[in-house]
Amino acid sequence: MGLVVQKYGGSSVADAEGIKRVAKRIVEAKKNGHQVVVVVSAMGDTTDELIDLAEQVSPMPAGREFDMLLTAGERISMALLAMAIKNLGHEAQSFTGSQAGVITDSVHNKARIIDVTPGRIRDSVDEGNIAIVAGFQGVSQDKKDITTLGRGGSDTTAVALAAALDAEVCEIYTDVDGVFTADPRVVKKAKKIDWIAFEDMLELAASGSKVLLHRCVEYARRYNIPIHVRSSFSGLQGTWVSNEPLVQKAQQQGEKVEQAIISGVAHDTSEAKVTVVGVPDKPGEAASIFRAIADAEINIDMVVQNVSAASTGLTDISFTLPKTEGRKAIDALERAKTAIGFDSLRYDDQIGKISLVGAGMKTNPGVTASFFEALSDAGVNIELISTSEIRISVVTRADDVPEAVRAVHTAFGLDSDTAEAVVYGGTGR
Amino acid sequence: MGLVVQKYGGSSVADAEGIKRVAKRIVEAKKNGHQVVVVVSAMGDTTDELIDLAEQVSPMPAGREFDMLLTAGERISMALLAMAIKNLGHEAQSFTGSQAGVITDSVHNKARIIDVTPGRIRDSVDEGNIAIVAGFQGVSQDKKDITTLGRGGSDTTAVALAAALDAEVCEIYTDVDGVFTADPRVVKKAKKIDWIAFEDMLELAASGSKVLLHRCVEYARRYNIPIHVRSSFSGLQGTWVSNEPLVQKAQQQGEKVEQAIISGVAHDTSEAKVTVVGVPDKPGEAASIFRAIADAEINIDMVVQNVSAASTGLTDISFTLPKTEGRKAIDALERAKTAIGFDSLRYDDQIGKISLVGAGMKTNPGVTASFFEALSDAGVNIELISTSEIRISVVTRADDVPEAVRAVHTAFGLDSDTAEAVVYGGTGR
Repeated sequence: MGLVVQKYGGSSVADAEGIKRVAKRIVEAKKNGHQVVVVVSAMGDTTDELIDLAEQVSPMPAGREFDMLLTAGERISMALLAMAIKNLGHEAQSFTGSQAGVITDSVHNKARIIDVTPGRIRDSVDEGNIAIVAGFQGVSQDKKDITTLGRGGSDTTAVALAAALDAEVCEIYTDVDGVFTADPRVVKKAKKIDWIAFEDMLELAASGSKVLLHRCVEYARRYNIPIHVRSSFSGLQGTWVSNEPLVQKAQQQGEKVEQAIISGVAHDTSEAKVTVVGVPDKPGEAASIFRAIADAEINIDMVVQNVSAASTGLTDISFTLPKTEGRKAIDALERAKTAIGFDSLRYDDQIGKISLVGAGMKTNPGVTASFFEALSDAGVNIELISTSEIRISVVTRADDVPEAVRAVHTAFGLDSDTAEAVVYGGTGR
Repeated sequence: MGLVVQKYGGSSVADAEGIKRVAKRIVEAKKNGHQVVVVVSAMGDTTDELIDLAEQVSPMPAGREFDMLLTAGERISMALLAMAIKNLGHEAQSFTGSQAGVITDSVHNKARIIDVTPGRIRDSVDEGNIAIVAGFQGVSQDKKDITTLGRGGSDTTAVALAAALDAEVCEIYTDVDGVFTADPRVVKKAKKIDWIAFEDMLELAASGSKVLLHRCVEYARRYNIPIHVRSSFSGLQGTWVSNEPLVQKAQQQGEKVEQAIISGVAHDTSEAKVTVVGVPDKPGEAASIFRAIADAEINIDMVVQNVSAASTGLTDISFTLPKTEGRKAIDALERAKTAIGFDSLRYDDQIGKISLVGAGMKTNPGVTASFFEALSDAGVNIELISTSEIRISVVTRADDVPEAVRAVHTAFGLDSDTAEAVVYGGTGR
């Protein structure tokens, strides 16, 4: 048996009891004959407490120092986890991101991994140790400064290490049993997905599913590392995310699993809609609007341009973006108003997005029609539409989102016979 | 003006307010034209809280992991301090022990500094930054593992960095105004010492004075780095520890300061006394006793052998050692009882040690006599005596220690006219 990378989030190691429970699970994997590398997040609320301290001493903490501060969190959890494992009679060593060879760029607070040189980790596991690595952190290539990877960074650390160590699988332990066909808090009958392709998982993550972040899945796809998302609180099989349908599980259990037409329904109520009203309908207008937005370093999501009214020669352009960027976008456009030459701006943060994701929709032409019918039957009005090869997304009123998600989930036969989802703890990093 | 190293203990940075207060003081030194390197301990009770967590997951935490855990403490305080300084409009960068080039041996929990390569610190201050360095920690030369320096380690970090950077002075900020002629909690009229020679400070530290630890003073003497011990809570001049009488202060103030005959009175109630009863008075007996103790890795302090009783040819040997080592010493001797051939062991942990320290006693023959007279007048019985060129120590009953210290302090004219000592906070690391 080969090497396994396991990642445990903050809710799994929230206190000493949690750390001891996780230590037992890690030792089980080792006893089963695997080499084990563990990536761990900071304990429970540690990161929030550190952020609170930073805000007490400085209203605008500098990136370099902020990263130095936050990385203390994983240092605590990883050392404690190593101690707990050694207390069970197995050898363990903890490593910082820097010691583990996680090399990043220099963008503090949201650095990107550019290389992993896991020589010390390889040596440690080859000597028979369980290696514990701090998630969420690295060291910058040029300045050798400590960096952090931003939200969900520990998952990315785990996948990047799994790739560099050529691991069999990257197990992401969390406080839910896996990836579900919809958010179980909204859809009681959401089903756990046994296997999902990287592409579908990427679309779900981009559409608001929070179990795995986009960047982590992207990394796993690039290096073809199977991810197994599962609960650290139960012993259940979770969700496999990989290129091939459930290779690992099928091999183990002699099963053959077909890919579903539809993987799931995601929703997102964190975005707002900006409408630029009265834009002259001539070449270059849209470009100048989105240049102003890009210069303000704002990422946008959906874009729709209305058909121009023949009488006026004017059109409206709408786009969605994170609510947190709303103020900045309005300011940027107001500054460019004369140059662009539009009439006015409308800002609406009471919207929601519902997305249907599934590679099967490529070869099933009825999917789009069924989707709109389901929304119509539920009395949900559609404001914007955007599609990719394997995804349809619509924007609706925020209040309509729960009903819309349930209606679509039922219409595509995703409902489970029973409510199977259990949420065990809080949410980790 | 040159480079100054400042060290702040845990009580000086116990909370956000403390950190902001210390940041202001650091910025003052920078404004006065100094290059400033700051060594900082973990905030207040952080270290104790981390130790508590470790004990919850493992009764015997491994050294390597324990060091990894504890070093999270300085990581937090140093990052917050750098943020607080930047918030005052000055540039600051924090560095771990490893980043600062503090190279140690591999003895976890009590590593010794074997080299300091402060290239990054030098570059940082030359670029105009205030460099903040984590105290108490380093990186092992052979394995590149994180190490801690043991109790008082942050002071040693500060002195070692001051030596490597050829600093003008190493300022040790603490929660008292300096080194006093006796412990102000015992002697209300204890006086702050303006200047004390390295040798006298070494003897005081070895005799129970807790303001500076022996290892730190030893390091400063070896590299001839003047130490200025002072309070972070007041603006007062503290105690200078150096080779030459108060060079710095004398130059500044045009004063000439003579060395006192007696520097101070130290006491220590952390030791116990072991008496080996009925040892055959022949060559090699003492050696075999202390070989057994040394093999158990126990450091002893005073040793006294009684005159042999002519009638029996047997003698008694007594020695003192830290109470924490008492159990281990008794076990080691019991195991060697047959080989050594003594009658019995006596263990007494109700003892105290009083020491009089002063380079002047070399040339003042009456000092020893006056010391014993003072103890006798106070009705204090002496159980053991040990002397060096510049120190006399006696062991008494623990209960007699406060009265004995006060009597000796008065007899040597050390009493101040007023109670000058103020203790501002807790104690740092």
